[in-house]
This record gives sequence, structure tokens and C-alpha cells, in this order.
Amino acid sequence: MMLKDLREEVYCANMELPKRGLVVYTWGNVSGIDREKGLVVIKPSGVEYDDLTPDNLVIVDMNNKIVEGSMNPSSDTKTHVELYKSFPSIGGIVHTHSPHAVAWAQAGKDIPCYGTTHADYFYGSVPCTRNLTAQEVDEDYELNTGRVIAETFRERKSDPLAVPGVICHSHGPFTWGKNAAKAVYHAVVLEEVAKMAMYTVTIDARAPEAPQYVLDKHYLRKHGPDAYYGQGN
Amino acid sequence: MMLKDLREEVYCANMELPKRGLVVYTWGNVSGIDREKGLVVIKPSGVEYDDLTPDNLVIVDMNNKIVEGSMNPSSDTKTHVELYKSFPSIGGIVHTHSPHAVAWAQAGKDIPCYGTTHADYFYGSVPCTRNLTAQEVDEDYELNTGRVIAETFRERKSDPLAVPGVICHSHGPFTWGKNAAKAVYHAVVLEEVAKMAMYTVTIDARAPEAPQYVLDKHYLRKHGPDAYYGQGN
Amino acid sequence: MMLKDLREEVYCANMELPKRGLVVYTWGNVSGIDREKGLVVIKPSGVEYDDLTPDNLVIVDMNNKIVEGSMNPSSDTKTHVELYKSFPSIGGIVHTHSPHAVAWAQAGKDIPCYGTTHADYFYGSVPCTRNLTAQEVDEDYELNTGRVIAETFRERKSDPLAVPGVICHSHGPFTWGKNAAKAVYHAVVLEEVAKMAMYTVTIDARAPEAPQYVLDKHYLRKHGPDAYYGQGN
Amino acid sequence: MMLKDLREEVYCANMELPKRGLVVYTWGNVSGIDREKGLVVIKPSGVEYDDLTPDNLVIVDMNNKIVEGSMNPSSDTKTHVELYKSFPSIGGIVHTHSPHAVAWAQAGKDIPCYGTTHADYFYGSVPCTRNLTAQEVDEDYELNTGRVIAETFRERKSDPLAVPGVICHSHGPFTWGKNAAKAVYHAVVLEEVAKMAMYTVTIDARAPEAPQYVLDKHYLRKHGPDAYYGQGN
Repeated sequence: MMLKDLREEVYCANMELPKRGLVVYTWGNVSGIDREKGLVVIKPSGVEYDDLTPDNLVIVDMNNKIVEGSMNPSSDTKTHVELYKSFPSIGGIVHTHSPHAVAWAQAGKDIPCYGTTHADYFYGSVPCTRNLTAQEVDEDYELNTGRVIAETFRERKSDPLAVPGVICHSHGPFTWGKNAAKAVYHAVVLEEVAKMAMYTVTIDARAPEAPQYVLDKHYLRKHGPDAYYGQGN
Repeated sequence: MMLKDLREEVYCANMELPKRGLVVYTWGNVSGIDREKGLVVIKPSGVEYDDLTPDNLVIVDMNNKIVEGSMNPSSDTKTHVELYKSFPSIGGIVHTHSPHAVAWAQAGKDIPCYGTTHADYFYGSVPCTRNLTAQEVDEDYELNTGRVIAETFRERKSDPLAVPGVICHSHGPFTWGKNAAKAVYHAVVLEEVAKMAMYTVTIDARAPEAPQYVLDKHYLRKHGPDAYYGQGN
Repeated sequence: MMLKDLREEVYCANMELPKRGLVVYTWGNVSGIDREKGLVVIKPSGVEYDDLTPDNLVIVDMNNKIVEGSMNPSSDTKTHVELYKSFPSIGGIVHTHSPHAVAWAQAGKDIPCYGTTHADYFYGSVPCTRNLTAQEVDEDYELNTGRVIAETFRERKSDPLAVPGVICHSHGPFTWGKNAAKAVYHAVVLEEVAKMAMYTVTIDARAPEAPQYVLDKHYLRKHGPDAYYGQGN
Repeated sequence: MMLKDLREEVYCANMELPKRGLVVYTWGNVSGIDREKGLVVIKPSGVEYDDLTPDNLVIVDMNNKIVEGSMNPSSDTKTHVELYKSFPSIGGIVHTHSPHAVAWAQAGKDIPCYGTTHADYFYGSVPCTRNLTAQEVDEDYELNTGRVIAETFRERKSDPLAVPGVICHSHGPFTWGKNAAKAVYHAVVLEEVAKMAMYTVTIDARAPEAPQYVLDKHYLRKHGPDAYYGQGN
């Protein structure tokens, strides 16, 4: 069996989703990539988390072809692969339907950066993509979902590692990171930040975003060469 | 004792309700039908889930007469039986007072199809029935509740398997499916979708529904001859 | 030790509060009354639920004098005793700070009867009292809290068994019932109904109350000589 | 190893945060001070609660210098130390990102004193600080966070033991108390009170604050020489 370590890592990352309360039934999936081999390990489609094992994960190549595995890969596989192609710096991807992130996606609005909890992980608002066109949906829905995400980051000149997530209009969140575990971490943070933002507009629909210099400070406290949060590892 | 397998199935489906956090005290019930024999297995009225067993479920016929069982069937039995008569394709029914679905019912509004989580299971908005008239309530409340649900689907030309649930005005949700387990699955999804829809209007009271072609895509990804979600079983 | 059975009953009812998620720390108390002896068993003040036993409950008489017990009774004792005097049909009382019921109390609004979940237990809206005057607070806050509750029911001509609860303006809920266990049951229902009502106004701030004939039907399905919910016990 | 007892106390207080549901990942920290020695025991930065022990807590002096410990102290250490300097009566401090308190901070609004739950612990509204200026952030963010909190209490003439908490604009809550355990208690209460206040404005955006004489009564029922809540200890 190929990629034993990556299988284990992606398995553990998938199992974090129900443990962290991010998924109902099978509404989520995690993948990880081996950049050297150009292979992606991903959850099989529609399989309950209780039935998941490292061994029944599916391996696909960069053309979405199954390389190893007897089950169908996640129906969102093409989106994952497209994101790995567009964002060379990322090593893991998560998709969930966590409810507060979904709500912002359904409202079709960026999640504003109202405070430092957000700024600690996402440098600026979390973008909401445009809706796909009817033609894009018809031609290749999952592939074009990935393309529209990449387009969003290209147009906004955003660095996918500085803004490690997106919400897809009328759909829900994708997050990513250097590996599958970090991608899940960002999925948890995104849901928490989406919840706090919803609470904020409940209290004051016109709440202003946090000042840019506060966001700079908090992001750079945790990231980059001058970071001083944590134990330096 | 009759219908051992169906009793077991309906028992397990009832026990899913507290496990999934859908019910407080005894505020919910599940039934399943044996179409050949024309018999419905249903929860007894007002019995705590801890005291429920496959054996103390009640069997009624299509005239709401008790065929087997020493307890009173659910006070909603006539609604269940009427739905089985009106919707020949369904095999299980659930009624709960799950709070977000109830809130939409109390507001008297359809649950709009704001996104793909919804569209994966409900093809279009989840309809809210009209209120029963005073006469309908007086004559036969539970029977007429079933009739008004059937009327709602007839008038909207909705397929009960494509929209496997409804919310009854000033009351709460009923869901159904090919069997009791699927009906519970839809009860869980409906509550989650109702929650996401409430969050969506909290963020933007004028949020638009998702484009029809996105809904088509998501529904048909999971249902019908061209479905490609899951493992094809 | 006096009133062993009632101590046990009131102890179990108190322990239901944290189990049902109704209290944070020590923010709740339950009492029960022995009408023949004119004695009330009540939680001691400020004691953690983990440290509660049937034996450290306090017994007071109808003049709020400690008859048995080495600890101070709940600081709300005078309110309980006043309610037992005003409502001769009740046998148990609960006070909590459950958050949704508190929110309606803080908004100073009755909880409208938006649907059947509410109507199954409360016949009409759950009243919110007026605020106490400065003089009433100064003279005897807890006694006057009980008096203002009684005044509210007297002025509205409400039957305390048909509407087994109230919210006190700027404060929170009191519920009651035939015994301590029923009073806790109503505290759970009141919080659930308050939550559903808040969700309802979130969806539509102008949602109408449910039609009176639906409320009548649901209340009378469960209560009175023609009730047919449950197993007739 | 120094300050064994205080290490144990601060360790237990830190572990209360995840137990009470106040923190996600490592988003919180508790400290305690030994006033005689002028030493503060505080959580190390970015360490998971599962990996925390009394021994890996860090001890710093009143100049923020590490006196004992091999790890970096919390990145918020300077804020804690500044608060200990400004508020001589306090013995423990907590910082969290609990979601409802954060939401009020993100909205930049004081948490109004809508009722007695709030008044039992906070004598008047919980103040929201002003935002730091760009210069204050640039010069010394964490130190100035402490200074702006102290400025807020000075300008409002508030007693930090009567109002044992604050929310920092665009950031989140700090609470304190006579010791670390009391500071955590106030963190739990603040989140609950912030939640109830958000629910209150959801029901009625113009809800008035509770009358001053009710707040006086509730606060003084629990605090000061005439307190009569609890068992007098």
C-alpha cells in the first residue's frame, strides 16, 4: 500500500472533523498531497467516519485518476486537485458544511475581520467567491469550483497561506494549510470566527472592521520572521 | 408478536432522535409501514425513550385501529397514517419539535433553499403549510394535519421523495423517507438546514436563494440515475 | 430528620437542573411543600450541586423560619413561600437563570405563544411581571417578588396550573407544578419555548401568535378530562 | 521549584477554561500573583491544555523578566503584569476569546446591565475600552493593552473588584478576582452575561437597562458587609 504515512496523517485529520463538531453525517472531507509524487490522498465519498480507516482512503493523481483504492473518492476531489495545482504552497485541504461559515456563504458575503481572533489566523476578510455560472456548473462543477476559488485569490492578490480559507457562494467553506492537520485547524478557526462575526452583526449590524494596524500586529505576532507567539517551533 | 423486523427498525429509528439531539422529553415519534400488510408500527404516546423497547411499539392498521399493543399509539398517529395513504412511495415518517425547524413553522414561512447543504436533500424550499381552520381542528385535528400536508404537496406539485419533509404552520416538522431510518436522517438534515437558514437571515435578511442550476446540480449529484455521490449503493 | 420523602424528591429535582443544562454554578433552586404540615424543603443558599444531599436541604415554615437544617436557605426562600401562599394548588417551585427565559425577562416582554410546543404546556403567553418599585425592593425584595408574581396572575385572571411559570422583569423565570419534579419539567419546557420564540422573532420580528383554537386544541389534548395524550396516567 | 502552591492554583484555574467551554485550542491564559514576592505565575505561550502541568508554568517578575521556567510565557504577559500593577487588590487574571464576550468587544460596545444575573457579579455595565492607537500598538502592544484597561477604569471611576472584567475593543475579555479561581469564575459569568445580553437585543434592540435600585440590591445581596447570599464564607 502506497503513502502509508500520508494515509495515516489524512486519516487522523478526517477524524478530527467529527471530534471538533464540524460535520454532520458525512458532510466533510480532508485530503493531503505528496508533492514529489504528485499524489493526493482523500476521503472516499459518502463513507461514515466510523467506517473510515487509513486503508480505505483513495489515492488520485493530478488528473483525478484513481491510483490506489477500491472506492470512489470524495465527489469534491476535482476541487481539491485544482486547488493543489493553483496553490503550490499548500499540503492539505478541508471541506466542511460547518453552519456559521455556511451561513456567510449563503448570504454571499465575505467574513469581515472584526477582531484579533480572526486576525491571528486570517490576514483580512475571508473572501466569498462569486457564484459559478450556469455554464461552469454544467461543464464541470467541481473543477470550476476550484477554478473560481483560485480566481478569487488571484483577483484579490491574496496569499493562500496568509488567508488559508474561502467560502464558496451558496455552498460553504474550504480551508487549507501546510499539511492536512493545519488545514483542519483552520477549518475549526474559520467556523469559530464566522460564529463570532455573526454574533457581532447581531449586536450591531454596522460594526466596523478592526483597524488595519491591529490586524497587522496580531497576524505578525503569530506569523513570519518576527513572530513571538508560542514556543518558536 | 407481529412484524419483528419492522419493530426493530422503528425502535432504532426512534432511539436516534434523542441521540441526535432532536427531542426534549417525549417530543417526537417515528413510524414505519409494512405496505403489503397495510400495517404501521409507531411509538406509544408519551413514553420516555429510556422506557422504549421494540415490543412496546404499537401496530395500527390503515383505519388507525390498534392491531397489536397494550398502549395508546402516538397522539399523532392519524397524521402518520394519512401521510402513508397520500404518499405511496414513503416507508417511514418522523415528527419532532426540533427548535430551528419549529421556529420557521412558527414564523409561518417556507425554509428557503439558500445553498447546497439544503439542495443535497431537499429539491427546493421546504414548504410551510397553511394553518388549519377552526373547523378542521375541531373535526379531527390530527387527520386534517395529514390532509393539509398532502394538500400542500398537491398544490405545489411537489414530489414527496424529492422534498422529504414539511413544516406545519404554528407547529413543527414532519419528515419521511423510504424507511424509518431515512426519515430520521431527513429530520436531522432539516433541523441543520433550518439552523443554517436562520443564521443566513441573521447575517442578511434579504439573502437571495441559491441559483436554480446550482440546486439542480447538487440534488442530481446525489439522487437519480446520474448520481455520482457515494459508493453507488 | 423530618420529611424524608420530600427531601429526597426535592433533592432529585434540584439535581435535574444541572443535568438538563439549566444552571451555571449555583444559579438555581428548587423547593417542595408539605401542605398538611405547612413546611417547605428548599436548597441551601450558594451550595454547589456536587455538594448537595437530601440531608443538607433546609426546612422552613410558612413564616420563613428555619425548622430544620444548619445552613441558610436559598436567598429566594421568601419568594417561594409567598408563591405557595398565593397559589394553593402548587406543590413545587423552581427558579433558574436559564439564558433564553432570562433574555425575555430582560427585554421585559411576555413570551408569546407562537406554536404548539408552547401551547402543550402553557395556556397562552408566559407573562412578564412589572419591575418592582424602589420601595418594594427596599422593603423586602424577595417577599415582594413573590407578591408581584401573584399580582400578575390575579390581574390577568390566569390559573397558575394552566400557566405554570412566569418571568420576572430584569430577572428571570420561576416555574411551578403539582410537585417539585413537575416544576423542573416546566422549567425545561419554558427555556425551550423561550429559545424557540427568540428564534421565531429572529426569522420574522412580526410573527403572529398561533390561532387561539390551535392553542385550545393542544392544551386540551394534554390536560383536563378529555386529554388523550399519553397513557392516561 | 518556586511557589508550589500558586503553581498548583494557577494550573487548576487554567484547566477550568477548557472544562467550562471557554477556549478553543490555546486561546486563553490564566495567571496568579504572589504579592509579597512580586512574582506572577502564568501559562506558557501556545501550549495545549493537555500538555500543561503545574511545573511548566512560567514565573515572571514585575518587569516581565522570566524568573523560573524554560518556556516562553503567554504573549499576553505584559498585559497581566500591567494590570497587577494598576489594580493592587486583585490576585488572578484571565484572558479568553469566549465568543459572546468577543462579539461585544468586536461591536465596540459596553455590555449593558440588563438584569440581575449581570448585577450579581458586575456592578454596572462591563466596559469596552477604546481601540489602541497605531502608535500604542507599534510601541508596545501588550503593555499598552494593560494601560488602556487601567485608563478605562480610572476615567469611569470604577472599582476593579466591583466590576471584575473588561472587554478590549476589537479583541476580547479580561477578567480578574482575588485569586486565579475567582478570575476564572468571573470569566464564565462574563461569557454567560454577554450571551444573555446578545439574546436580549435579539428580542428587543431597544431593551432598557435594569433599574439602578435593582442592581444595587442584587450586587449588595452578594457583596459587602450586608451580604446575605450563601453561607457567609
